[in-house]
Amino acid sequence: MLVVQKFGGTSVGDLDRIENVAKRVAKTRAQGNDVVVVVSAMSGETNKLTDYAHHFSKTPRKKEMDLLLSSGERVTSALLSIALNEMGTPAVAMTGREAGILTDASHTMARISNIDPKPMIDAVEEGKVVVVAGFQGISADGKVTTLGRGGSDLSAVAIAGAIEADLCEIYTDVDGIYTTDPRIEPDAHKMHKISYDEMLELASLGAKVLQNRSVELAKKLDLNLVVRSSFNENEGTLITKEDKMMEEVLVSGVALDKNQARIDLRGVADRPGIASEIFNALSKENINVDMIVQTISKDGATSLDFTVPQSELESVKSVMQNFSESINEIEYNDEIVKVSIVGVGMKNHSGIAALAFETLAKENINIQMISTSEIKVSMVIDKKYGELAVRALHSAYEL
Amino acid sequence: MLVVQKFGGTSVGDLDRIENVAKRVAKTRAQGNDVVVVVSAMSGETNKLTDYAHHFSKTPRKKEMDLLLSSGERVTSALLSIALNEMGTPAVAMTGREAGILTDASHTMARISNIDPKPMIDAVEEGKVVVVAGFQGISADGKVTTLGRGGSDLSAVAIAGAIEADLCEIYTDVDGIYTTDPRIEPDAHKMHKISYDEMLELASLGAKVLQNRSVELAKKLDLNLVVRSSFNENEGTLITKEDKMMEEVLVSGVALDKNQARIDLRGVADRPGIASEIFNALSKENINVDMIVQTISKDGATSLDFTVPQSELESVKSVMQNFSESINEIEYNDEIVKVSIVGVGMKNHSGIAALAFETLAKENINIQMISTSEIKVSMVIDKKYGELAVRALHSAYEL
Repeated sequence: MLVVQKFGGTSVGDLDRIENVAKRVAKTRAQGNDVVVVVSAMSGETNKLTDYAHHFSKTPRKKEMDLLLSSGERVTSALLSIALNEMGTPAVAMTGREAGILTDASHTMARISNIDPKPMIDAVEEGKVVVVAGFQGISADGKVTTLGRGGSDLSAVAIAGAIEADLCEIYTDVDGIYTTDPRIEPDAHKMHKISYDEMLELASLGAKVLQNRSVELAKKLDLNLVVRSSFNENEGTLITKEDKMMEEVLVSGVALDKNQARIDLRGVADRPGIASEIFNALSKENINVDMIVQTISKDGATSLDFTVPQSELESVKSVMQNFSESINEIEYNDEIVKVSIVGVGMKNHSGIAALAFETLAKENINIQMISTSEIKVSMVIDKKYGELAVRALHSAYEL
Repeated sequence: MLVVQKFGGTSVGDLDRIENVAKRVAKTRAQGNDVVVVVSAMSGETNKLTDYAHHFSKTPRKKEMDLLLSSGERVTSALLSIALNEMGTPAVAMTGREAGILTDASHTMARISNIDPKPMIDAVEEGKVVVVAGFQGISADGKVTTLGRGGSDLSAVAIAGAIEADLCEIYTDVDGIYTTDPRIEPDAHKMHKISYDEMLELASLGAKVLQNRSVELAKKLDLNLVVRSSFNENEGTLITKEDKMMEEVLVSGVALDKNQARIDLRGVADRPGIASEIFNALSKENINVDMIVQTISKDGATSLDFTVPQSELESVKSVMQNFSESINEIEYNDEIVKVSIVGVGMKNHSGIAALAFETLAKENINIQMISTSEIKVSMVIDKKYGELAVRALHSAYEL
């Protein structure tokens, strides 16, 4: 098999852990597999470098940030390759550039435009393990770029696609994807298998094991992804395309997102296009609006409620100042959480959402906002009820 | 003026020092100069990364070492550029690759083969300060290479040559080049000016401010070099070509090298080529032989004495095992030092060396080995007399 193994920051967090990663890679290789490894920076390193930059400037130039931040992954790839060679497993370290990873020119948040698989394939055919510095590539004019948060996962998935790997393993500090957060609900259990779409909903809902961009790309490439721990030998969770068996499961997971804030706009002026004006203004500031609910009250006044990440609340406030004449009353609330149930089975079954509402009602939890998609139901509730809601839903759907 | 300013590891040793460097560069720029800056890694960084590599392997692969070690300078160049931009001095960071620095493929000890000045010149013409990551380049096949110890000085000198700079300033933690080590002789004073050749002799003799490769290249390029401190505004030492005025000074400096070991081979077999066999064998192990003295005693037995850096004594011992049949007796002695006087004035004056011998004799210091060149006289003496010899010579030549 041709396998891509990606190791995150905590998995390569110190020299002993890098040694352990080397042993695991060497073992995979010794079992007859060809291996391309993608590594993150040692944990803490990227934050340290970011802090250094912010010591000098609140808004450092992005080209310089890429030069700065790309160095951490280079260090890890060199060290892991040195460790592998010392163990008698021939290996070669490659930067994003050397691995042929081309991106657009959007520094600090570049998108992979193309991968020339030849350098990696050539090295693999020479019997070498290739150790690629994740999170980075080069733009068409040859400048180092980075891919943004979670970029190493994206590197791994894109490389797996480009070299036509049979499997892409994402090693992290958790065992896999759970039906809900085990710290909240002790009965939570690891899923053996989950569809791309379910994973996408779970990730965006707070199960932050894997960035959505990576899952989306894996789905597009039809690539089998496995999320597993680098600290034990436990089998992880396979993220793959939906199959018949999956459809029997109505709900596969419950997610809790504590990082949301709610904005209520009451008495929004009754003129065409006002909603699109508001959301365009938010979008221009790169504010990530999640749920949106619009209601028209009996007296004809429009209410618009939406949620954003808490970190963007201040930006929202400043955007909203431009709309003070068009809106009667604005309320900001960050004492809320979003709880969601996800499952491909919902597509073909009715009554799934109703059970969720009923379950929360039984616990006397008031639902402030509801948003549904084909495979998920999200509900905004009072922050203090978050854990209770997760446990109740986890049990109601017999997970 | 077009100026190259190079800042060493201690000058950029922490964030505050980088800030100070930024202020100095900004000031140079504000005075109307065009500036290209070359930076080293933050002090301690290269050693830390080397230690990391040696945690895994005593002989890490050199390509990986280059990938590893080149990251430190990239970080500094990004940070300095960010600091400069924040101060309102437009700047752009460049890696060795981006600055067009091509080298041969000798990883970890590459030689610069060519510099394409266009990227740097273009940025300078756009009014930007260019901040280049020192110590690194790329080989013809596009792999990152590093230039070995002192490589950032070499980057600075080579860049100054390629962009036809008017001046290359090497900022370090000392004020300039002294007539001898001020910690030994309080009367030592900073030289205003020194010739390339004198600097070469002083550097190789233990005044380790500037690597010889850099001075040699500056001489070849006829480039004015200034060594000065980044921690004060003192004028430094100008290293330039010999001029008339210089010739009036007989001896310009006294150097002490404590890092030497002496090897005495007694009763060397009397067959042709034995000396070249020995020194070839040493050279194959990359052992840096410094002084060599051969004597033939009255009974026809040959003695061969030579010195090497102390760190290479163990390698010498292992090479010498292959010659045990050709040599009667081998003595190793690392309780020695080499003291040297240097000055271009010697060329045209006799009696300079005699005064040195006389001075040491007066102090009852026995001279074990002597080696002379056109502009220097080196003497190996007992370690305990090192400082005394320096003071006596410094005074004898009225420095």
